[in-house]
Amino acid sequence: MKKEKFIDPWGSELPEDYARLIKEFGLEEFKLSEFPEPNKLMRRGLVFAGRGLSMISKAIKEKKPFYALSGIMPSAEKIHLGNKCVIDNMIYFQEQGAKTYMLVADLESAATRNVDIKEARKRALNYHIPAYIALGLDYKKTKFYFQSTNKEVVSLAFSLSNKATLNEYRAIYGSVSPARIISSVLQVADILYPQIEEEMPGIIPVGIDQDPHIRLTRDIAKRAKNYKFFLPSGIYHKYTPALDGSLKMSKSKGNFIEIPESPENIKNKIMKALTGGRKTAEEQKRLGGQPEKDMLYELFKQHLIENDKELLQRVKDNKSGKILSREDKEYAIELLNKFMDNFNKKFEKARNIIDKVEII
Amino acid sequence: MKKEKFIDPWGSELPEDYARLIKEFGLEEFKLSEFPEPNKLMRRGLVFAGRGLSMISKAIKEKKPFYALSGIMPSAEKIHLGNKCVIDNMIYFQEQGAKTYMLVADLESAATRNVDIKEARKRALNYHIPAYIALGLDYKKTKFYFQSTNKEVVSLAFSLSNKATLNEYRAIYGSVSPARIISSVLQVADILYPQIEEEMPGIIPVGIDQDPHIRLTRDIAKRAKNYKFFLPSGIYHKYTPALDGSLKMSKSKGNFIEIPESPENIKNKIMKALTGGRKTAEEQKRLGGQPEKDMLYELFKQHLIENDKELLQRVKDNKSGKILSREDKEYAIELLNKFMDNFNKKFEKARNIIDKVEII
Repeated sequence: MKKEKFIDPWGSELPEDYARLIKEFGLEEFKLSEFPEPNKLMRRGLVFAGRGLSMISKAIKEKKPFYALSGIMPSAEKIHLGNKCVIDNMIYFQEQGAKTYMLVADLESAATRNVDIKEARKRALNYHIPAYIALGLDYKKTKFYFQSTNKEVVSLAFSLSNKATLNEYRAIYGSVSPARIISSVLQVADILYPQIEEEMPGIIPVGIDQDPHIRLTRDIAKRAKNYKFFLPSGIYHKYTPALDGSLKMSKSKGNFIEIPESPENIKNKIMKALTGGRKTAEEQKRLGGQPEKDMLYELFKQHLIENDKELLQRVKDNKSGKILSREDKEYAIELLNKFMDNFNKKFEKARNIIDKVEII
Repeated sequence: MKKEKFIDPWGSELPEDYARLIKEFGLEEFKLSEFPEPNKLMRRGLVFAGRGLSMISKAIKEKKPFYALSGIMPSAEKIHLGNKCVIDNMIYFQEQGAKTYMLVADLESAATRNVDIKEARKRALNYHIPAYIALGLDYKKTKFYFQSTNKEVVSLAFSLSNKATLNEYRAIYGSVSPARIISSVLQVADILYPQIEEEMPGIIPVGIDQDPHIRLTRDIAKRAKNYKFFLPSGIYHKYTPALDGSLKMSKSKGNFIEIPESPENIKNKIMKALTGGRKTAEEQKRLGGQPEKDMLYELFKQHLIENDKELLQRVKDNKSGKILSREDKEYAIELLNKFMDNFNKKFEKARNIIDKVEII
């Protein structure tokens, strides 16, 4: 039963490097059976680890209060499909009863990205918040706030600033700077802030590369004895590779899909994507494709194909040589266009109701 | 004329170590003739240096807008006579037309002194703000604010946090910590904040040991080109020695006068003060006192004797052996008791009108 639900088209074992991360950093392996109605990222092994997960699964099962929190970095002009993993997990926890907090990191973007606070506010209201709503976040159940206008968060940041040393910050950031330190202290306060409003555990969905923030926040929460914080939980998904198979997304290389994206851009980007296809159609029919190396299958798995059976069948057909890479590309383009059409409609709607969204 | 007004009872030359400070740190010497109606700290050489002073004296003379800013550290339960020098200079600039800003450093005290923000607020409202008013600050002309509730200051701090390196902070603080960095960034924002409200130069009266903050703020103001800040000016007074002649005030040694102070405490503290008196009354009559080594004369000069002629006469009489140290002590006790009576009355009055004080 458990095995059946765990649908990782390229084997349910964790790749060696992710298994090593779990061991090396003392992470907990994500257990699918512990979370009711898992989303596709969970079912397909993309969500693979965390910290303090049992506290959250217990809260879900016992219908006790807990929170999920994530942040919008308004320095980015657009989000991309990689960011969508976090949103999907936020939506999952929201549907499982989490009080949902979405902060706009405007102070952080002023400090570390040179985007001033007014500009950050404008971008968040015109694009990011409506985009998150369009992607499925229920705004009626979400508490949005700007760091710059949330006095409690700022006060908490200063109060917690003496709970970790410069060396601990250095261990996280490599090189530290005043701007990074002040932003990082504020991030810790963001993560713990909902507990100032209500005593409850909370979960922060992030990419695995963000674990150090969670670790630091847990350390600080432990030391801030007068607050009696629950240690915040983290839930981690794997890196989203770029369309050319590299680890680094690059605007100039056009190797990732932004939201929204025009049909022309979609076509161009997908046509250059790295696939697991063979040199010729004849060869692919004979040898079969290699979906495990295929960035289109990464897209299908992470975002574009909702139905597990359909995904498994497609993986099988690609492997057997029944489906050619050209057909995968056409299908990816078709699904992405559908996705963007749907997004654009909901985005317009969300922009029209932005005045009704409660923002601190 | 200028010489006549410059009343330093022990010679108008700067002691060697202060002259060295001016040279070493590139300070400007304070020029008495540049500031109309100088207060006694100025007339008596206690105010001795600064940065950007001419910009301020020009604003005073031309009746152009400028500001004076100082901070209350609410972690201290009481202020002492040493703190009064800053207040006296704030009052001077207020009387010369400065827009006056008094901030309560509650975020800083939470970060670096472990005094939480609620407690800091309580102390500031119950004691510090009324005390400043009792000491002569005109609350109707003063903008008080708490760091924790002034969003503009916090936003400015984050925006300016990337304008100096960790090494620059280290040069100021010796050892740096996240709490000190975040507090220091906020202090820079405090100093420049009035210029967000109105384009005008400003002056920060501080003890000479605080010059590094002013230097850092000037460096940052220079680099923050999009703000077009006037470089903030600083005006510096000398260290206030403790009553036992040491440089360090110590609560347990009772070697400084708090505000307010009971008659018993005043008596005890003054009786143990270091004087320039001789071993016996006979010897003092013969050799004369040494007011330049006498902490009572430090008190007379800085705080207790307003009239220059009276002070000079007393110095003369002490030097000639006409006044004995016992008499100086009695007079200091008498003047301190008068000072405290006056303070207590005004303090009660100030506490009663605290609701009328405009506080951001």
